[in-house]
Amino acid sequence: MDYEDRKENSKKVKLGITIGDYNGVGPEIILKVFSDKRMMDLFIPIIYGSGRVLSWYKKHLNIDVFSHHQYHEGSYVNEKKVNVISCWKDPQQVDPGKKTTEAGKCAIQALEKAKEDLKTGFIDGIVTCPISKETVQDKNFTFPGHTEFFQDAFSKEKKALMLMVSEQMRVGVLSGHIPLEEVKSKITRDSLIQSLKILTNSIKGDFRVEKPKIAVLGLNPHAGDNGLLGKEENEIIKPTIAELYKKGNLVFGPYSADGFFGAGLWKKFDAVLAMYHDQGIIPFKTICFNSGVNYTAGLSIVRTSPDHGTAFDIAGKNIADETSLREAIYLALDVIKARKGAPENKMRVVKEDPRLLEKLP
Amino acid sequence: MDYEDRKENSKKVKLGITIGDYNGVGPEIILKVFSDKRMMDLFIPIIYGSGRVLSWYKKHLNIDVFSHHQYHEGSYVNEKKVNVISCWKDPQQVDPGKKTTEAGKCAIQALEKAKEDLKTGFIDGIVTCPISKETVQDKNFTFPGHTEFFQDAFSKEKKALMLMVSEQMRVGVLSGHIPLEEVKSKITRDSLIQSLKILTNSIKGDFRVEKPKIAVLGLNPHAGDNGLLGKEENEIIKPTIAELYKKGNLVFGPYSADGFFGAGLWKKFDAVLAMYHDQGIIPFKTICFNSGVNYTAGLSIVRTSPDHGTAFDIAGKNIADETSLREAIYLALDVIKARKGAPENKMRVVKEDPRLLEKLP
Repeated sequence: MDYEDRKENSKKVKLGITIGDYNGVGPEIILKVFSDKRMMDLFIPIIYGSGRVLSWYKKHLNIDVFSHHQYHEGSYVNEKKVNVISCWKDPQQVDPGKKTTEAGKCAIQALEKAKEDLKTGFIDGIVTCPISKETVQDKNFTFPGHTEFFQDAFSKEKKALMLMVSEQMRVGVLSGHIPLEEVKSKITRDSLIQSLKILTNSIKGDFRVEKPKIAVLGLNPHAGDNGLLGKEENEIIKPTIAELYKKGNLVFGPYSADGFFGAGLWKKFDAVLAMYHDQGIIPFKTICFNSGVNYTAGLSIVRTSPDHGTAFDIAGKNIADETSLREAIYLALDVIKARKGAPENKMRVVKEDPRLLEKLP
Repeated sequence: MDYEDRKENSKKVKLGITIGDYNGVGPEIILKVFSDKRMMDLFIPIIYGSGRVLSWYKKHLNIDVFSHHQYHEGSYVNEKKVNVISCWKDPQQVDPGKKTTEAGKCAIQALEKAKEDLKTGFIDGIVTCPISKETVQDKNFTFPGHTEFFQDAFSKEKKALMLMVSEQMRVGVLSGHIPLEEVKSKITRDSLIQSLKILTNSIKGDFRVEKPKIAVLGLNPHAGDNGLLGKEENEIIKPTIAELYKKGNLVFGPYSADGFFGAGLWKKFDAVLAMYHDQGIIPFKTICFNSGVNYTAGLSIVRTSPDHGTAFDIAGKNIADETSLREAIYLALDVIKARKGAPENKMRVVKEDPRLLEKLP
């Protein structure tokens, strides 16, 4: 979708944006995104965080931006301005780059408020700016990250899928933020079926691809090399793919991950399912650097986020790049509309290597 | 090095090339490489395989190429022709694309003969065309692949390092062709020190970089996120890097693998050490597709190979691409000369992203 289509399609959508860790780059990239006034024509933004913090950064970074509208429960939403809901009462000391438990607590309060407003339908979707896994670890927040937080609240089966999305590529990861040694135990027939179901349904419903073609990667080097380098492909992955294929799903694989990305085979599919984090995220970031968005597939609500972290090392220095947040907002708007029946949100057409054409399943 | 330098530098070098599995693409890519007659000016090729097999493919593929010189023990080496040593006696039935134990046995016989000739110094180095891990498994050959075969013969400590090399990038993998679940057990202080020693010495001696800058990747997602996603970084990798750095080695990390490749940080280093196969080979192939060479670092002799397999699915169809074999030959020649004291074999200068400059260690 281009800007004009998006503008036409997104009228009146209220999209929440959580500020994330206020000592990270979240406030800065929010300010930068809305320094382009045309964003206001696309949707009504509701920022979950603190007007004081945003004002502090405006002054500190000297960014010429919007004057926001402070929204309170029961007051009106200003459709022409950036609405800010202050989610904590005490004024906080902003200290860019510093990891503090206060900033962690405030980030959680913003998330909790956004969750509430998603439940009531006050907002149509949510974009989350980065939090720090280190500062948000306390007894009231036991989730490793946003994905699990929203999964707990908005998935009946408590199962969502981390899906990286760009205009070239969509990659889901079966096992997400866990140590490498735990990956093997996550590869089961059930988890594969569940992940592929979430992925397929999301590509159909959220991206409006009628018959999605999905590639599944192997777990081991060379997809196990027919059992010589690992047995999971022969014992679990192949039979599960065959089972789903028989039922009419266009699921293919398991592919050897290095060759799959190296030879550009990914261009032939609507989405890829990787078995673990680095297997999917390394090639995604290598190919789509800066334009990637983290989408949580399988939720009843729409949630996206930029594909980077708090970036404490560059916070407050006015060098953070807001591209990924802008893409995350665009994707959230597109999915909200897709769920209401908008036509297919096509991936950018990629020039194809003719040598690959005959290799396809 | 360009063609002219290589020609000047490589005079009289005798380079062996094993034919690999003759039902794979090995014979075809050899014929295609030498259909460019200028290759003969660079070195004296000694093919380990079978004159009959090469002749069969010449006819079958109708490639207009060299007439080879059949070399026998005690006969002369023809410096102006492709010399072929027939390594098995019985004529074999060539059957492109078919996995046979006969082809596996012949591939081993060629390797054994080449090993012998490397030991006597008859050849200066070896380039190996792909074998099939499935067809070479018998009681006389218990190695998972070429790397382990040569490691056993030409490394005192029985330890070599798989190093992927292109003009942009060099990536070593600490643990090679093993199931993913076994990776964790390979990450120890000793294995890290040994791998980094082999890597550093190879970049110094084989690529003539005086003070190589080496990046080490973490094992877990986000390099363990300070212990939240795995402990190996804090307990093993970080202290080992610190220990080596203190001793004057320019070793940095551990880096989060997705961000490292996504943000182009790899451009800042002379080599990268990945913890396991897919972590290193996925981004290597994604970035360097078709120009990559598999180099075995840490051997007393020089061994390279193209970075693809037997490709049974396209064997005999005249569509195999010989680029990687040609690059493997070039790299072998460059390393042979480097070990004799030739100047630095520089990586291609990569246009650098100015945003990265300040991020570096």
